[in-house]
Parts: sequence; structure tokens; C-alpha cells
Amino acid sequence: MAIDFTLEDDVVAYRDRIVAFVAEELIPLEQDTFRTGLTDDLRRDIQTKARARGLWAPQAAGEYGGGGYDYLQAATLLEAAGYSLLGPLALNCHAPDEGNIHLLTAVATPEQKERYLRPLIGGEWRSCFAMTEPPPGAGSDPAALQTTATRTDGGWVIAGEKTLITGADGAGFSIVMARTGDEAGAATMFLVDADNPGWVVTDHVRTIDSVAVGGHCRVLLDDVAVADDAVLGDVGRAFANAQVRLVPARLTHCMRWLGAAQRAHDIALDRANNRSLFGEPLVHHGMAQQLIADNEIDLAAARALLWHATWQYTTGAKGTEQSSRAKVFVSEATFRIVDRAVQLAGGMGTTDELVIGRIFADIRAFRIYDGASEVHRMSIAKRAARRMAEQQH
Amino acid sequence: MAIDFTLEDDVVAYRDRIVAFVAEELIPLEQDTFRTGLTDDLRRDIQTKARARGLWAPQAAGEYGGGGYDYLQAATLLEAAGYSLLGPLALNCHAPDEGNIHLLTAVATPEQKERYLRPLIGGEWRSCFAMTEPPPGAGSDPAALQTTATRTDGGWVIAGEKTLITGADGAGFSIVMARTGDEAGAATMFLVDADNPGWVVTDHVRTIDSVAVGGHCRVLLDDVAVADDAVLGDVGRAFANAQVRLVPARLTHCMRWLGAAQRAHDIALDRANNRSLFGEPLVHHGMAQQLIADNEIDLAAARALLWHATWQYTTGAKGTEQSSRAKVFVSEATFRIVDRAVQLAGGMGTTDELVIGRIFADIRAFRIYDGASEVHRMSIAKRAARRMAEQQH
Amino acid sequence: MAIDFTLEDDVVAYRDRIVAFVAEELIPLEQDTFRTGLTDDLRRDIQTKARARGLWAPQAAGEYGGGGYDYLQAATLLEAAGYSLLGPLALNCHAPDEGNIHLLTAVATPEQKERYLRPLIGGEWRSCFAMTEPPPGAGSDPAALQTTATRTDGGWVIAGEKTLITGADGAGFSIVMARTGDEAGAATMFLVDADNPGWVVTDHVRTIDSVAVGGHCRVLLDDVAVADDAVLGDVGRAFANAQVRLVPARLTHCMRWLGAAQRAHDIALDRANNRSLFGEPLVHHGMAQQLIADNEIDLAAARALLWHATWQYTTGAKGTEQSSRAKVFVSEATFRIVDRAVQLAGGMGTTDELVIGRIFADIRAFRIYDGASEVHRMSIAKRAARRMAEQQH
Amino acid sequence: MAIDFTLEDDVVAYRDRIVAFVAEELIPLEQDTFRTGLTDDLRRDIQTKARARGLWAPQAAGEYGGGGYDYLQAATLLEAAGYSLLGPLALNCHAPDEGNIHLLTAVATPEQKERYLRPLIGGEWRSCFAMTEPPPGAGSDPAALQTTATRTDGGWVIAGEKTLITGADGAGFSIVMARTGDEAGAATMFLVDADNPGWVVTDHVRTIDSVAVGGHCRVLLDDVAVADDAVLGDVGRAFANAQVRLVPARLTHCMRWLGAAQRAHDIALDRANNRSLFGEPLVHHGMAQQLIADNEIDLAAARALLWHATWQYTTGAKGTEQSSRAKVFVSEATFRIVDRAVQLAGGMGTTDELVIGRIFADIRAFRIYDGASEVHRMSIAKRAARRMAEQQH
Repeated sequence: MAIDFTLEDDVVAYRDRIVAFVAEELIPLEQDTFRTGLTDDLRRDIQTKARARGLWAPQAAGEYGGGGYDYLQAATLLEAAGYSLLGPLALNCHAPDEGNIHLLTAVATPEQKERYLRPLIGGEWRSCFAMTEPPPGAGSDPAALQTTATRTDGGWVIAGEKTLITGADGAGFSIVMARTGDEAGAATMFLVDADNPGWVVTDHVRTIDSVAVGGHCRVLLDDVAVADDAVLGDVGRAFANAQVRLVPARLTHCMRWLGAAQRAHDIALDRANNRSLFGEPLVHHGMAQQLIADNEIDLAAARALLWHATWQYTTGAKGTEQSSRAKVFVSEATFRIVDRAVQLAGGMGTTDELVIGRIFADIRAFRIYDGASEVHRMSIAKRAARRMAEQQH
Repeated sequence: MAIDFTLEDDVVAYRDRIVAFVAEELIPLEQDTFRTGLTDDLRRDIQTKARARGLWAPQAAGEYGGGGYDYLQAATLLEAAGYSLLGPLALNCHAPDEGNIHLLTAVATPEQKERYLRPLIGGEWRSCFAMTEPPPGAGSDPAALQTTATRTDGGWVIAGEKTLITGADGAGFSIVMARTGDEAGAATMFLVDADNPGWVVTDHVRTIDSVAVGGHCRVLLDDVAVADDAVLGDVGRAFANAQVRLVPARLTHCMRWLGAAQRAHDIALDRANNRSLFGEPLVHHGMAQQLIADNEIDLAAARALLWHATWQYTTGAKGTEQSSRAKVFVSEATFRIVDRAVQLAGGMGTTDELVIGRIFADIRAFRIYDGASEVHRMSIAKRAARRMAEQQH
Repeated sequence: MAIDFTLEDDVVAYRDRIVAFVAEELIPLEQDTFRTGLTDDLRRDIQTKARARGLWAPQAAGEYGGGGYDYLQAATLLEAAGYSLLGPLALNCHAPDEGNIHLLTAVATPEQKERYLRPLIGGEWRSCFAMTEPPPGAGSDPAALQTTATRTDGGWVIAGEKTLITGADGAGFSIVMARTGDEAGAATMFLVDADNPGWVVTDHVRTIDSVAVGGHCRVLLDDVAVADDAVLGDVGRAFANAQVRLVPARLTHCMRWLGAAQRAHDIALDRANNRSLFGEPLVHHGMAQQLIADNEIDLAAARALLWHATWQYTTGAKGTEQSSRAKVFVSEATFRIVDRAVQLAGGMGTTDELVIGRIFADIRAFRIYDGASEVHRMSIAKRAARRMAEQQH
Repeated sequence: MAIDFTLEDDVVAYRDRIVAFVAEELIPLEQDTFRTGLTDDLRRDIQTKARARGLWAPQAAGEYGGGGYDYLQAATLLEAAGYSLLGPLALNCHAPDEGNIHLLTAVATPEQKERYLRPLIGGEWRSCFAMTEPPPGAGSDPAALQTTATRTDGGWVIAGEKTLITGADGAGFSIVMARTGDEAGAATMFLVDADNPGWVVTDHVRTIDSVAVGGHCRVLLDDVAVADDAVLGDVGRAFANAQVRLVPARLTHCMRWLGAAQRAHDIALDRANNRSLFGEPLVHHGMAQQLIADNEIDLAAARALLWHATWQYTTGAKGTEQSSRAKVFVSEATFRIVDRAVQLAGGMGTTDELVIGRIFADIRAFRIYDGASEVHRMSIAKRAARRMAEQQH
């Protein structure tokens, strides 16, 4: 065993098939999708096409219908899927479902897996993850959770408000975090079916991104009654379970957005190859070269750091610190890349038509969700300081 | 005469009335406008309201119905208008009309002024400026102009394609740049009425911004026949006239966007004052303080540099270099400010609802239009190098 | 009164004479000085030359022998002096003496002014300002002051340690801050003659900068006995008096370093004009143009913001916030400028010989002393947050 | 084979021994060395100590006395050596000798290897690499080479001037690049003994760095007569051979400076753990946490990217592009890291005493030598553009 960056043959082959699928099936659909928005009809259509090519949920557990690849292998596959904003959805490796699949695989009961996980991996329905709340509730600080679940005879009643719940509109079920005790940290996860009468998707938050099927919703939990078997993981373990979900969820976000950033760069570079400015090809201009080179460097560095963090996670590290570092770097690097691509492409760079503008608007929130850069930096610094203090003793 | 930053009393009074108008009349209309788009109906409505308060085209020539303020005074007024994305339109100091007003005032004949300028300043119609073209035509390099105007008996026939023409849909007339000779630089400006049968707005480019009434359009110039009195300025003077328009147009863009950046900062700061994270007010967190302080610094520096450049222009400098410097700095500083405001506001920062997300998407193109940052840097560096070379001889 | 950036005629004339002096007398001495270090012999030599040309302490009080210019006028003069690292010393407007002159002018008794201020402005001796201490004493947080002054019969005994005391070695006297009570903030300033037997300059801290005459020293206050008339300002007023000194001290640092940054830029630009790379003049390369343009922009923005802050101070503002903003921006902008000049100049950019390398090493500490950037940002953010909170009520 | 970041056991063991050696033997010598400069006496002393511990030239060919580790393994070892500015010299893996060792191993004749390479790896003498020249000669553009070598009877006469020749003073021999024909690219490398009467080290360029034994020198090649066997590689192959040297030379620079950056970070972090500001530990302040976290992230990203580039090189890639990307990123990231460490450490951060200041001054030139960042970016962009153009056909 030594440092090695060789991709396995079957990963390369799978990736190449994704590349072809994205080019042949998804990119031709993008412009219409940007015009009309991302619907479940489109989702079913492109998921059918992906499955027909044997491209499906590469990161999901094999025994429940996924590809069975580990996250380090998935890094290459999800990046390839992310090359189109439609790719992750088509391959059923998009957020928030990918994270929910991972969480259910890790902590659900066998019955819950049959009922929720298998059809979720199968693409029969979508899901959402209901954690964030309007102020002063849970956001960057999950501990501020306001939604409560109260014990009743044989079950629980959940009451509260959630916001920015991605994919809620049209989801088949939700994983809901609620407070189940007075002590700090006493919270529990529940599986709530979308047809539960207390689960009310009130409206969509009007965000500048466009490619979340089901939008980013406000949800009212209006005395949602659930039975005991709706508890996901154990009572009181919501925060621990959220951590189980969070590390790989961050890493797969990085994988997907790296693909989107590569796409923006490629479009801008191809265009720069074919345009002239002041009588010279655009790519001969030094400042254009700087934009291009900085993108090449950021792409390479982001990928290397992401692989390193993912390797640490797949080989047994808890991965909190490594995924924090990767998430901050990759989210900021991909933003820089896309921003440079906009600039390189000029006026058309801010349009849906050249796709770069769409990626620019969609990627902005990545520096915020799954932990804002600032929150990760706080956590990284505290760990580093503690490690140094221990080392000096 | 000495360095002085005192604002004149009537400027302060005018500004304060704009501030009140924006708060009382425009901000309440923003959310509906973001939902439905910016229409000419809305334009007429808010322009009527502004005029009713005596707030109108502060930068336009007094003899044609404008406020008669010089650009240095206007810096304060247009910034105040820019505090709402609807403000510049309401006060008739928005792009591209503001630049066209300036150009017409400088170079139009008395007859053209009566026919085009007076109703333009009066808000009776809107206008557009048709310079940029699809590749390989005029863009960052105006000299690549492909549209031609051919001499006919008693007039001209203009043929070509234009793209990203802001405000074209619904404009009453356009200032069109066309090549009128084989030599480099042989180009002429024409006034083209929108009801000219050859003037065809084909469609809107789908951009990520939202607040340009009339959109950013593709226009076909399908053998547009105009008479000799449609020539604006002299034949062959299009590039020189474009410079006349460009310097103040850049400066007023800076003024308006500075107001929008201040707005984003204020919203984020007010929100940070009222939120807690990990048990402490958000504004007590060091990384939040860094975002806030960097915004305060960038706002102050951008304003000071903009005033300096504007002062040089209003006191007789040609202003090309000064406005280039200001445009690069202010467009990049305001982008940084809005980006930090997004980050400080968290998930809601990427929404129309908190306005910051809308400003973020709308301000991106400012680093590109009226000269991309790279083109200005090239020009600034060349001048600096030439000046140094002369100084050493 | 309105916004105006006109320099007064006598300021322009004074500046031009400084420019000539720097070019003719100081720049020829630089290389030898870099080799041998900055001595008091050299100081006397260049100060004699400056006085011979009528160039002297432009910012100092006229009645005590200074030029009598206000700080807004001095902005131009001190920048011109800063064009050589020897300039501020030659004109007796260098740190820490300039700040001490200001402080003594503001708070000293008539007797103290005759004894300390007049010869200090006259260049008969140098001074130092003894505030910072080794950990855990006063540094970025002045309130951590550890040195104590104890009341004795008819005087005080001061005991403690100071570090990084600029100019201490060879100074004629020092302004010493010491704790004179148990309550927070109970501290007093004392005038201590260098021949006081308790005042011991133990050694020089080995820093990477080079142009502080008298170095940055460690000082032992070994029971320094002083009489009552050694109290500067009132007992218990040390922190308030330090503020009196601090605002203009920050502003003049900005002025001087702006001159040094301009120098680094000019050297690099002149060199770039005269070198070729890959068969083209260096200034034709886009990435060189970017370095040059960014320097031009940063110089213009830094100067405009500095003038604005200085205008606010000279027209009556306390100036704490304005000078904080200017200090952060100017210290960071000048560092960027010099760093780019190094890069533009290539290998020789890191040398004393081309001067840029020397400026690079010397300017680094400017982001730290007189308040680290982080401390200023904290203060700026708190004020902004408070202002917003008040405005919302 | 798959992606793997496991360090081999013997690499870990070797690294740990380097870590101990640096801590026990080198760090205690640093302050004296900073005071007096780096001499060959010190070199011999620390090289003797390193060899006594079995720590020696890990990257050099085993058959000539080196450690025989490949560059990917050496990445870990040279980083550990770089933790002290004295480390690379002590282990004989410093620049320029490391690069010369690699080049001689690759292209020297058996006789040249015995005469030059074996004693060079053995530490019996030092060497230098004489390529760069004063303007208008070779620098960032090697093709501008002015020094000539003229054919004579049975040998060559070399004439010209070189500058910034690191280690020239005291070197036993030099590899000299000289033009040997009129066509572009016609150049040859020569081995020149330092006792050749035409080889004259005229003086040291006064740079701001400190740890190059033998300085950065100006050298006069005053009709240096050499025999035919002084040709290194083939006649006319100098530029190709320089490429052979350049790729690993860049990579090892990255390795060593990564160690130095880690050191600066560790010192600053340890200090921040032990200092208070405004009544709180410095590491609790958000802005300090940001500096710390950004350093942790940059260190991890730089290391991952460097490993990736080095893996590509050791597994057969030519490595020009990969090493360019790594060199730009690592040189800029390590500079940022050290700059943040200075800031975190406050006033003492700019001193030799806390070491950080010394590293700051020494690391600046790394963004320039072995290809300035701008030159690498130009090359990276051109390759990327070409690749894209080919892909589109």
C-alpha cells in the first residue's frame, strides 16, 4: 500500500458511460428544463433513461438496488453525473435523497428499509430532510431546534415549522428532526409520510437556484401524529444520526458540484478558443489565460483534496474534520471556477442559454448549506487548536 | 479650493427625499415585481409616483426637463435611488436611458433633441442602445462591429444583428451603431424608431438578472431604412460618440450599484443583529464581524474612489482612465459586498424574499458590461506604462 | 462647499520640493543605508539636508518649529516623503516621533513642551513610545498593561518590561504607559529621560524590517524614579491620551506607506517597460498588465479613502472608525501593491538592490502595528452593528 | 490498484527520524544561524550530524550514495526536512544541489558521475546551476540566453554573465548553460569547476532571504576554457536537459516549502493557544479561527495536489503541466499560510526570533524562481486550450 491515484477499471468504464449519457440524453434537455423548471415528470423520464443504460444510484447499497460503489469510487462517478445539473437526479444520486439513502441504510430497521429505503433507491418516490427552521430555530446551529415531538399513547405528535426543506413538494416522505426532551441534544428523527394530514407544504421559498425538484419549501408540522415505528434510529439520537448523514452528504455535494464547475469551465474554454478580441484569439490574451489557468489549478486541487478526505472517510475515519476542510475548499473553489467562467464568457456568461449563468446562480448556496463555510472554519480551528495543545503536553 | 467632502445642502435634501420615497413607495412593491417581472405598466406607475414627489432624472439637463445636477452631485442621488432595484427606473436615471440622455444632450441636433431627448427625459418612452452583436461582432471590442449602414438616395439602409440589447422590447427608439466604411473606425450612430418595419426584436436572452425593463434582447436589423436626419452626431463619428456616452454611463452604473450593495449590506447587518448562533448574537462572532467590517470598508473605499473619478470628470478630465479604475474597483467591490451579505444572511441570503439573493444575481453582469474588468485593466495598464515611459525621457 | 479634490497651491509646491529632495539627496543614499543600517549619524545628515531646503516636519505645530500644515494637507506631503524609506526620517515626520509630537502638542504642559516638544520637533533628539509589552502584557489589547507606576514621595517609581519599542536605542526620552491603579483603565503616561538609570534598553528584537532608526527594542523599566512633573496629561488618562495619539498616528502611517508603495510600483513599472519576455515587451503581457492595473487601482482607492478619513478627522470627527477603515484598507492595499511589484520585477524584486524587496520586508508589520487588521475589523463591525440597531429603533 | 493515500511503513519511519533530528539538532541552531548567516562550516556540521543518524539525501540515487526513494516517497521526507530552514541542507536535499543531482543522474556520462555526482551526493562539495542572466538575458524566458560557448580546438570557451546564481560562492562546480549556435534553442550545458580561472564570482545579490548557503551571486564567465568532456548531455540539448531537471526540482521545492509553511503555522497556532486578547484565549476569537482554519485547509489542499502531481510524474507522466499546477498552487498557498501565521502571531510574527518572520522573507521568492506563477499560468492555459480544441475536433 502506498500513495496511488489509479482509478479502477470498472470505475473508469462506469464513468465513461455516464459521460456519454449526460452528453447524449441530458444536455439536450437542459434548455427546456431551465425554461419550465424541474418537474417530477422530467425526473421520471430521465431516470428511466438512466436505468435503461444501467446507470443507477452508484453510491447506494447494492442489496437494496444501488450500485454498491464506495464513496471513493463514487467520487469519480458523481462528478461525471454533476456535469449536467440534471445528472445527479437522473442517476438518483442527488441531494437530499442521496443523504437520506445513506442514513436509512445505516440506521433504519429492516422494516423501515423495505418500506422507505428500497423504493427510494428504486426511484419510486423522492424524500426530503426536514431539519432547518425559521429563526430562531435550527439552521447553522442545529441545537436551536424548536420543533417538538410529544409522546402520546403508542406514538408521537410532532409540531413546528420548517423552512428551506429541499424537495418537500412532491416528496413521498420526510425525515423530520424534532426535540424530544428538555436537555440540550435530546432530539429524535421521525419518518413522516407525505400523506400524513399534519404534514403541510405551505409554499416555496423563492431562491435564485433552479434545479431542486420539489423546490425549497416551507412546511408546517401541524400536529403530525406518527406511530412508534416512525422513529428512525433511536429516540434521542437525532444529532448523532445527523452526523452519520452529514459527512458523506457533504462529500457527495462536493463531487457533484465539481462536475458542474468542470462543465462551466469547459464551456467557457471552448468558447474562448473560438472567439477573437482585438484581433487575437481570446485564449492568447494573458488575462484570459489567467482565468483559464486558475480554473485548471482549482479543479485539480479541489479534486485531490476531495479524494483525500473521501479516502480517509472510506478507510475508517469519522471524517468530520476532513469533510469540513474539503467542503470549505471545494465549495469556495467551485464558486471561483464558475465565477471565472462567467467572466471568460462575457455577456453570455450570465445566461441560462450558455448554462454557465445557471450554474452560477445554482452553486451559490453550496457555501451555505450543509454547514456554512464560517461554521466549518470555526470547527476546523477548534480541532486544530486542541490537537496542538495536546501535542504540547 | 482644497480637498473637501462636504455634500451641498440641496443635494442632501434631495437625497433624503429619495430615501423616503424608496422606503415608502418602492420597497413595498419589490416582492410582487420579483414574482412577475418588471413591466412598462409598473414603470409608468412608479415614475408617476416619483414625479409627484418632485423626484425626477436628477442627472438630466434642466432645459429638457431633468434635474440639472452635475455628475458629482448625482453620485449621491443615484446611489440613493439604487437602494431599491426599482429606484433608478422610477427616477428615470436607469441604464440604458440615462446614458442615452447624456449622449443625446451632447451630440443631437436641436430637432433630434425635441423629437427624442425631451420625451425620453420626460419618461414618455424608453430607449435602447444597440451596439453589441453576436460573435464575431462587437462586444468587449467595439471595433469588431459587423452591422453595416449603406448609403442610399437620401438616407441609409442598416443591416445586421444585435444581441443583449437591454430594454429593446418596448423601447420607443434605439441608438444603433453601424459600420459606414471600410476603414477601421468608420462607423456611425443612427436613431431608429421602434416602429421602423426593419427593426425586429426577435427574442429575449435568458439572463439571470431580473430588473431590466424590456429585457436583454436579440434584434434583427432587417434592412432598416432611415433618412439622413437619423444620423446622430456626424457620419463616421460613432466610436468617438460612444466614448462621450461611456464615461458617465460607467460612473452612474457605479453610483446605482453602490446603492444596491449598501442595501444588501444593511439587510444582512440588520438580520445579523437579530439572530443568534451557538447562544450568542451573530454579530458577536468574529467571522461575522469580518464580513461586516469588510463590507463597511469596501463601501467607504468604493464611494471615495467613485467620487474622486467623478470629480475629475466633472472638472474637465476626459475621464476614460479614471472611470475605468472606478468601474473595475466599484464593480468588484460591490460584488464582494453582496456576496458577503449573502453569506452573512445564510440560507435566506440566496432568496428573492430577502432581496439579497436578487441583488446577487442581478449585479453579476456589472463586471462585464460597459467594459469587462479585464478590458479596463488592459487599458489602465497601457496608459500607466506609457506615462511612465514618457516620464523617463 | 462641495466635494472637491483640488490640492492647494502651496501644498503642491511643497510636495514638488520634497519630490526633488528625495530624488536628489535620499535615493542616492539608500543602498549604503540598506547595507549598514540606519544610524543617528545618517539621520542627522539627512535632516540637515532637508532643513537646508526648508523641508521640515510639515505636520508639526508651527509655533514649535513645524510646518503647521493640517493632516489633510500633510497627506500629500508625507506621501511624497515616504517615496524613500529615508524620507520621513529626513523630514522629521516619521514614526514614532510624529505621533509623539502630536501627543505632546495636545496634552503636554508648557514646561514639558519647552523641554521635550521643541527639541523633538527641532530634531535635536528622538523619542520613543513605550506601550507594548511581552506576553501577557499590552499589545493588541492595551488594557492588558502590566507595567506599574507606584506613588512615592513627590513622584513615581515605574517598574516593568516593554518590547518592540521602536526607536528606543538612542532615543532622548520615552513616553511610558504604566498602570496607576487597580481598576481597569487606570493608567498614566510618563515622560522618562533616556539617561534615567532605571531605563535600560536591553536588546533589539531581530525583525525583518530595516529602516527604524534605533530599532525595535526590549526595555527594562528597573524602578524608574520620576518626579511629578513627568506625568504627561493627567494621572489616570493614559488610555484616553493614547487615543489622542492613535488616530493621527494611523493616518500618517498610511500616508508614508502609500508613498513607499507608489515607489515600488514605479520601479517595477519602469523596469517592465524596459524588459522583454518571449519576444514582447513585458508590459504587453496580459498578466503583467493585470499586476500593473491592480496597482494603479489600489493606489487610487487607497488615496481617496485615506483623504476621506483624514478630512473627517480634520473637520472635527473623532476619527476612530474612519481611521480604522482607512488603516485596514491602506495597510492591506499597500501590501498587495508591493507584493505585485515584487512579482512584476521577478527575481530582482526580492532584493534590496531594486529597493522593492526592502519595501516588501519593511511594510509587512504595518498590518499589525497601531492595531492589527483583525482588531480594527472587530471594532468597525461593532460600531456598524450598533448604528444599525439604533437606526431600527 | 485504486486511489490510496497510505504512506509506506519505511517512509513513515524515516520521516519520524527526520522529525526528531530537526527538533533535537537543527531547531536549536537556528537563531545563531539567522544572526550569522549560513556558512559552509555550519553545513558540514549539520550534514555530519544527519549522516550520523542515517538521514541522507533520501531522493538521490542509491547506487551513488543516496537514499533511493522515489519522488512520491520523498514528498513526505523532504517536507519533514523543510520543517527547519536548515533541514534540506542538512539532509543534502536542498536546492540547487538536489536538482543538479537529479540532472547528473539522468544525463551525465559514467566518468562525469564519478567525478561530479558521487561527491555531490556525498556532501563533499556543493554545486550551482548557472542559467539566469542579467537583462536582457535568460530569466523567466530561458530562450533569451546571452552567454555563448564557442568551439575551440578540443574544447569550448564560455563567455558571459550570470546573476542570481544560488550557491555559487563556495560551490565546487557549476552546470552552465550557454548558447552554442545561432538557431533558437541551440544551447549546451557545461560542467565548470569552480577553480577554472575564468569562473569569477563577483558579488552577492542582496536579497531578503537568508538561508541559501553560498548566496545568490553574480558570476562572470571570463572566457572559461573547458575540454570536450565538460559537455553535460549532448551538444545542443541544454533546453531539453533543463526540462529534465525542472520538473522534479519544482516538486521538491514544493515539498520543502510545505514543511516550512507547516512550521510557521504550528508556531503561530501554539502561540495563539497560549495568549489571551480582550480576556479570551486568542484561539476563541473568530478571526483568529479563520486564519487557523484557512491554514489547515491550504496545507491539506497543497499536500494533496502535490502528491497527485508527484504521483503522475513518478508513474511516467512528463509532468510539465502537473508540476506547473502544483508549483503555482503550493507556492501561493504556502505564502498565504506563512502570511497568516505572521498575522496570527502579531508583532513577533515579523521577527527572526519567532522564526515565522524569517520564513516569510525567505519564502517570497518561491513564487518567482523555477518559473514565475505568471509563466506557469500561461503555459497551463495554453495546454488546456489546445486540449479542448483537439477534443472538439
